[in-house]
Amino acid sequence: MIRHVDGGITAPAGFRAAGVHCGIKASALDLALLVADAPASAAGLFTINRVQAAPVTISREHLARSGGVASAVVVNSGCANACTGPPGLDAARAMAAEAAAALGCAPERILVASTGVIGVQLDREKITRGIGAAAARLSRDGHTDAARAIMTTDPFPKACAVEIETPTGPFRVGGMAKGSGMIEPNLATMLGFLTTDARVEPARLRQALATAADQSFNAITVDGECSTNDTVFALASGAAGVTIDDESYPALVEGLVAVGRELAVAIVRGGEGATKLVEVRVTGAATGDEARRAARTIANSPLVKTAVHGGDPNWGRLVAAAGRAGVELDLARAAVRIGPVELFRDGIPYDDRAPEAAACLRGTEIVIQVHLGAGDQTATMWTCDLSAEYVRINAEYRT
Amino acid sequence: MIRHVDGGITAPAGFRAAGVHCGIKASALDLALLVADAPASAAGLFTINRVQAAPVTISREHLARSGGVASAVVVNSGCANACTGPPGLDAARAMAAEAAAALGCAPERILVASTGVIGVQLDREKITRGIGAAAARLSRDGHTDAARAIMTTDPFPKACAVEIETPTGPFRVGGMAKGSGMIEPNLATMLGFLTTDARVEPARLRQALATAADQSFNAITVDGECSTNDTVFALASGAAGVTIDDESYPALVEGLVAVGRELAVAIVRGGEGATKLVEVRVTGAATGDEARRAARTIANSPLVKTAVHGGDPNWGRLVAAAGRAGVELDLARAAVRIGPVELFRDGIPYDDRAPEAAACLRGTEIVIQVHLGAGDQTATMWTCDLSAEYVRINAEYRT
Repeated sequence: MIRHVDGGITAPAGFRAAGVHCGIKASALDLALLVADAPASAAGLFTINRVQAAPVTISREHLARSGGVASAVVVNSGCANACTGPPGLDAARAMAAEAAAALGCAPERILVASTGVIGVQLDREKITRGIGAAAARLSRDGHTDAARAIMTTDPFPKACAVEIETPTGPFRVGGMAKGSGMIEPNLATMLGFLTTDARVEPARLRQALATAADQSFNAITVDGECSTNDTVFALASGAAGVTIDDESYPALVEGLVAVGRELAVAIVRGGEGATKLVEVRVTGAATGDEARRAARTIANSPLVKTAVHGGDPNWGRLVAAAGRAGVELDLARAAVRIGPVELFRDGIPYDDRAPEAAACLRGTEIVIQVHLGAGDQTATMWTCDLSAEYVRINAEYRT
Repeated sequence: MIRHVDGGITAPAGFRAAGVHCGIKASALDLALLVADAPASAAGLFTINRVQAAPVTISREHLARSGGVASAVVVNSGCANACTGPPGLDAARAMAAEAAAALGCAPERILVASTGVIGVQLDREKITRGIGAAAARLSRDGHTDAARAIMTTDPFPKACAVEIETPTGPFRVGGMAKGSGMIEPNLATMLGFLTTDARVEPARLRQALATAADQSFNAITVDGECSTNDTVFALASGAAGVTIDDESYPALVEGLVAVGRELAVAIVRGGEGATKLVEVRVTGAATGDEARRAARTIANSPLVKTAVHGGDPNWGRLVAAAGRAGVELDLARAAVRIGPVELFRDGIPYDDRAPEAAACLRGTEIVIQVHLGAGDQTATMWTCDLSAEYVRINAEYRT
């Protein structure tokens, strides 16, 4: 049994949060602090970009040194602290040290994340001031400000929470995220933060987070770009009194997937210039990896994304995108659907159904299904359409 | 010694061509015929898309059966003959048979290519009529009409020719191509046709074509899409009396690269919505494959392409794109240049030079150089900017 509950990262017991304005951005909230009342199990997933921002390096170090235990997460927006060399690493370390001092814990118990412009040094004084202000304002209600403070140019804050029943009682999973709303060039980072009040060993939490991310944060794309700062953290306070064992482990994954997927889909909905949410379902793949590869190629195809934007039920582009994904595909057994409308099956086009498919494309939530005819494996990706607004947003001159 | 000469595919001796209107398109030229006066050595390169159009299948068959000898190439525009099942294969075979009958040769000596809408059957009567009309109009001057007849929505025809001096006399290489100007959705094919009057064994021609294509047609991208119909053919008539042996082989490759690259760059220039030609040079890669992979990732990055469109000297996007290419990269030794302006070197940004780099980006031909700091291998790709016009073109409803 899983049900939505109010709130975000502080919906699970044992967490408080705050979001403040420290001056990195001209006026908006730009620093978030998430604090666990007692040391929490912690796990992290980081960008696979070879260029990794300083906070990614430092958080990875801290998770290794603490053995997967954290007391707090500090996040700033407006500056990515990426491509900033040794001074950038010092600044990320100082950001953790300041939070550790304010909260009275070891610095390796602090995780850090940044999002914003690449190649600009972090203003350490502003961060210090912000951490002090945020530490003084921590509360269960602070999740709203925290979710706003991690935004760069996201059109709306992203937060949600669920409660899961288990035989030994209920526990909660909450979360917040920011997406790749890159109205100011260079702001391209995806950050996700998940909390739970279940009691979970760090190794188990890491495993559950990786599984959940594959079905949520790793299954979305706006434009195929992968940032230098992408980070997802999970913290488990244990305050609900429910311990995750082999039996209740699936419930933990279910909760993390539910919250992660809602946040991930919200990121796509808030993608730059996005007007439509597109669910790409690939079926009939020879292997799971091929299913994911085909889904990702279709979801990133500019010709597919522009066709969706223009409401064009262009099954030829879907077949061509699947064809160039380097996966097994049997055209004589393949099929393409837009919504419930089958436009191509077993090598035969049904173009008379195009008007019906075009009507589906006029909606804002679209399901596209491509059957490869090569096996029984499946994968789903979420993407958005490609609009002229995306180009306008990203072509604007930075200075 | 290599120099440009007038003309296109018929600049080398031993070839005649024609372009006619057969009615597949409403009014424009839509069928091209290239004929070798005597059987010519022939080689072909085809799309790596798993979904391959009928003419690709048939041309591949004919090259295998004839052992690399061809008398003519027939090309139609307006209909891709892709995803058309067994009737499509019959139509492609019939297209070759009609040309063979008109020219008095075996059908396997005819190569065919199509470009246009996917999923629509080829009108065999129109093709037959067109072949008859074209066969009656063959001439050395026909190259201009032929280059126009293979266009779909290309903004301009693409043709050129060179003459190469060798110790045993001069020979010529000529060519024509069409690009991916996809104003009508689904028209996405790249077709290239190269001719030479040197005498070349089929196996050697195939090898030279593959080498030349890697430095020309395979080194360009407009939007990362790969069509179901992409084809490049090379025909060698031997009419110049120069035989290509081990010694003169580099001259043949040089000629094919010169013509192929000029045509390929013209395809990028005429890319959908393109306003700028961008040369992406990757240096300092650990391997040649990694250099090509990094260059391709940068050249296809929507954030890089929109930044170029907007004139934004955004080196962070270049570093981030190289970073996600999955190649070795040492940020402490990396460098980024826009034109001659170095914006990032050895981990240090030079943002004070941004205005100078922005001035370079206001031009229509831009060189971007990314040094990976991981070795000494290099690669070059040509791409164009991503404009709102690209979206408008491709979002337009097909029917």
